[in-house]
Amino acid sequence: MKLIEYHEASPEVRAVFDDIMAKRKTDSVNNFWKALAHDPVTLRRTWASIQEVMSAGELDPLVKELIYIAVSATNGCEYCIASHSASATAKGMTDKMFTELMAVVGMANETNRLVAGYRVPVDERFKQTDQ
Amino acid sequence: MKLIEYHEASPEVRAVFDDIMAKRKTDSVNNFWKALAHDPVTLRRTWASIQEVMSAGELDPLVKELIYIAVSATNGCEYCIASHSASATAKGMTDKMFTELMAVVGMANETNRLVAGYRVPVDERFKQTDQ
Amino acid sequence: MKLIEYHEASPEVRAVFDDIMAKRKTDSVNNFWKALAHDPVTLRRTWASIQEVMSAGELDPLVKELIYIAVSATNGCEYCIASHSASATAKGMTDKMFTELMAVVGMANETNRLVAGYRVPVDERFKQTDQ
Amino acid sequence: MKLIEYHEASPEVRAVFDDIMAKRKTDSVNNFWKALAHDPVTLRRTWASIQEVMSAGELDPLVKELIYIAVSATNGCEYCIASHSASATAKGMTDKMFTELMAVVGMANETNRLVAGYRVPVDERFKQTDQ
Amino acid sequence: MKLIEYHEASPEVRAVFDDIMAKRKTDSVNNFWKALAHDPVTLRRTWASIQEVMSAGELDPLVKELIYIAVSATNGCEYCIASHSASATAKGMTDKMFTELMAVVGMANETNRLVAGYRVPVDERFKQTDQ
Amino acid sequence: MKLIEYHEASPEVRAVFDDIMAKRKTDSVNNFWKALAHDPVTLRRTWASIQEVMSAGELDPLVKELIYIAVSATNGCEYCIASHSASATAKGMTDKMFTELMAVVGMANETNRLVAGYRVPVDERFKQTDQ
Repeated sequence: MKLIEYHEASPEVRAVFDDIMAKRKTDSVNNFWKALAHDPVTLRRTWASIQEVMSAGELDPLVKELIYIAVSATNGCEYCIASHSASATAKGMTDKMFTELMAVVGMANETNRLVAGYRVPVDERFKQTDQ
Repeated sequence: MKLIEYHEASPEVRAVFDDIMAKRKTDSVNNFWKALAHDPVTLRRTWASIQEVMSAGELDPLVKELIYIAVSATNGCEYCIASHSASATAKGMTDKMFTELMAVVGMANETNRLVAGYRVPVDERFKQTDQ
Repeated sequence: MKLIEYHEASPEVRAVFDDIMAKRKTDSVNNFWKALAHDPVTLRRTWASIQEVMSAGELDPLVKELIYIAVSATNGCEYCIASHSASATAKGMTDKMFTELMAVVGMANETNRLVAGYRVPVDERFKQTDQ
Repeated sequence: MKLIEYHEASPEVRAVFDDIMAKRKTDSVNNFWKALAHDPVTLRRTWASIQEVMSAGELDPLVKELIYIAVSATNGCEYCIASHSASATAKGMTDKMFTELMAVVGMANETNRLVAGYRVPVDERFKQTDQ
Repeated sequence: MKLIEYHEASPEVRAVFDDIMAKRKTDSVNNFWKALAHDPVTLRRTWASIQEVMSAGELDPLVKELIYIAVSATNGCEYCIASHSASATAKGMTDKMFTELMAVVGMANETNRLVAGYRVPVDERFKQTDQ
Repeated sequence: MKLIEYHEASPEVRAVFDDIMAKRKTDSVNNFWKALAHDPVTLRRTWASIQEVMSAGELDPLVKELIYIAVSATNGCEYCIASHSASATAKGMTDKMFTELMAVVGMANETNRLVAGYRVPVDERFKQTDQ
């Protein structure tokens, strides 16, 4: 499906685009939002959810971006890695942070499979109780 | 394959187990290492790599544990989630940090697939250059 | 490996290509089949299986295409999303159906990871019995 | 993390639990919601999103459940398969529908990898334009 | 869905069960086939395909079992790892082969993600031509 | 991040590049290593690990390459499939071996999901003991 540009968007979509540009202090929106514009309900919901999830809490926004990249690299989502690496850089990610992030992501993906292949049982002390 | 306990381990494996217990200030090793003990070369290499990768750098060890959990939840590795949640908690992860982590992990997995399904092209400004 | 075109295909491969074109009422075959032509046995088996699996049963062919796209988006297979979106459209998928499909796919991928991360135990009433 | 039962839940969480039970005409909530109760914001958002996404639209609710199961089987999420198989059955999924669903899911996962391994290029006519 | 035992199976299913037991020189069938028995068409097709795919060709059956385990560990399919580790052992897999297999699987999963995260472009000389 | 070429690499990185070229008897290094050069510690560790893991043991190097490709196709890592298909071919992989490999990979990915969807319980005789 083609990307929907601002000038051809419905008022409902434009309102979300306007909010994205205002909050992000930019004059354009990423292709992701232009694609989601085919589904105004999902566009609105996803934008609202992203703001709720990615904003500062006990974890700061940069850490959240690193987590986002970790998931995206694990899933092999090129677009997501590209756009969130840009976001992370804007929030202070240094090259060294990125390379450390990738080292952890690589190692976790390796050990996840060693665990699966060896069928390692969960240690008693790591089991959840009260369920 | 059965787990290899300390008393039945080879000297080579015991040396790694001893180092794990000394560095982690504990008197037991997790099942993961007892399983890897079937392959002393991989045991040694993985323990050395884990220490190199997970130690403090530009990212602090707690952030690295969060990234580890993010990957493990994306891959559905129960053992890895269980053991690294324990590690993260030991390093200061609060319940609120965990729930924020999971919210980001969930959202990233959702948007990764929206990107794939809509086949969103990478924005020109996110493309890598100099290659 | 290069794609194998009709004019350079073996008689065994041509027979499958002919059947694909006849059944699909088209005069060309997709690149997928031209690639599989390197392995005539798998080509034949896969084409036979696809017909068996994707044809009308209790689920109609369009629903089966939607399921196919759901899997392909989850796996991030661009080719599969592209070709089966075309098939689905030919069978009546509207833009609205596609956007609803993607919303479900995104949500399922999100909640799948929340379940993994929180290590949610299966409710007693959902457990299989008689095993 | 332990499951949070109704009697120990905060008023905010109880309000969501009450709404789930009312809308689903049942007197209990699934473990998924009891786990998410650790994060009332995500609990509320996820419940609202699920209702929006899974309700009738151009696709009927049963088809949406089938899509949900397809994703969950691809990701290997046992809990998700178990709970949504129950939901799908309640909405009319027959055993035959389930077996056809699984046949498509299996086939799609197979061909997704054949496509990746053979590195099949997207056919020109399946490429997106206007971007 | 419950497992279907021989004594309760339809003649069509029994015929496949009989063939499995005869070919494998055993007097029982694995749970996988008892589950698939709910869908006799998929049961028959899958059994025929497995024999075609897993038998000796240019790759010997043991190598094929190792590949099967590699995929299953990557996907985290416990049942598949368990049953095919048994098959591989029956065909001559030693403990050392298994541990070497897992080391490769772990390493490949690690580097796959480093490649994704760093967005490494395919070297010109690895690109496919003639397409 | 841009690729780091030999002429602009640090002495530490050049030492690894030199070793790669010497061991592989070639006068260039793949893009993967040029990307990892941003993180000399991971570059060195990964190169050392790859040599340890991929060299001849009970499994010969070609079988290890096949396993590597199996994982990469399952993860949809185009770069990894491309570069390791070249390595495998250099070590003796024929076209027929490759097509048999892909048939197994496809089949394993299919049955992995049938197992997940049908929630097939592990057969008693495949369960690990002594744990």
